[in-house]
Amino acid sequence: MTHSTSDHTAGQPATPGDPEGIDPSVLDELTRLRDSIDNIDAAVVHMLAERFKCTQQVGHLKAAHRLPPADPAREARQITRLRQLAESAKLDPGFAEKLLNFIIAEVIRHHETIARSDNGTEGPEGALR
Amino acid sequence: MTHSTSDHTAGQPATPGDPEGIDPSVLDELTRLRDSIDNIDAAVVHMLAERFKCTQQVGHLKAAHRLPPADPAREARQITRLRQLAESAKLDPGFAEKLLNFIIAEVIRHHETIARSDNGTEGPEGALR
Repeated sequence: MTHSTSDHTAGQPATPGDPEGIDPSVLDELTRLRDSIDNIDAAVVHMLAERFKCTQQVGHLKAAHRLPPADPAREARQITRLRQLAESAKLDPGFAEKLLNFIIAEVIRHHETIARSDNGTEGPEGALR
Repeated sequence: MTHSTSDHTAGQPATPGDPEGIDPSVLDELTRLRDSIDNIDAAVVHMLAERFKCTQQVGHLKAAHRLPPADPAREARQITRLRQLAESAKLDPGFAEKLLNFIIAEVIRHHETIARSDNGTEGPEGALR
């Protein structure tokens, strides 16, 4: 991320932050795409906020009823399903799987907090899925 | 993720994959929450598929018009905005920022592919945001 415009001595390309020299139609197209990216990011943030509300409830439910935290069969089904959904949406299935694992890592971190506040005796593994 | 039910000798808790011994109302609640989690995951996968379509277009646009790949000001605005959105949605802003960085890393990987296929001369840094 330390790339600077000084690397582009030939042609002196302008930066999007400095609109001079950019064809206005190109700048419009870039702005249009970035507005869509920003809308999508807002949607994803809100979907994930809702997802964490669900997994918090799962965590409390499991702690209250002494259900085991890990459910490897559930996790395997989630990964298989997400990979299939990604393929049909033309998203790299490997990326979808990595993303799920990234989110699950955060869920586990949340569960550690729940386990402490509920004085639960379960370990932190996978309880909120 | 190697946690097994054999760790729970006291009380022999049932597993969600083995419904015997679980109160049906608890199982219903767990299923309801998991169905919501699955719906949200499907929505997120599809939103991200759409996001990558946008960033692919940004990559081609920048390559075609020799725009510099990095735009640190844009990136800083994205992070500030996402952290604010996360806070209002009661999602950990730190998690939202980590997620954006995780997605951007994948975008950069895609850009490396575009740069090769377009025979571009730009570096891989940040071109698709």
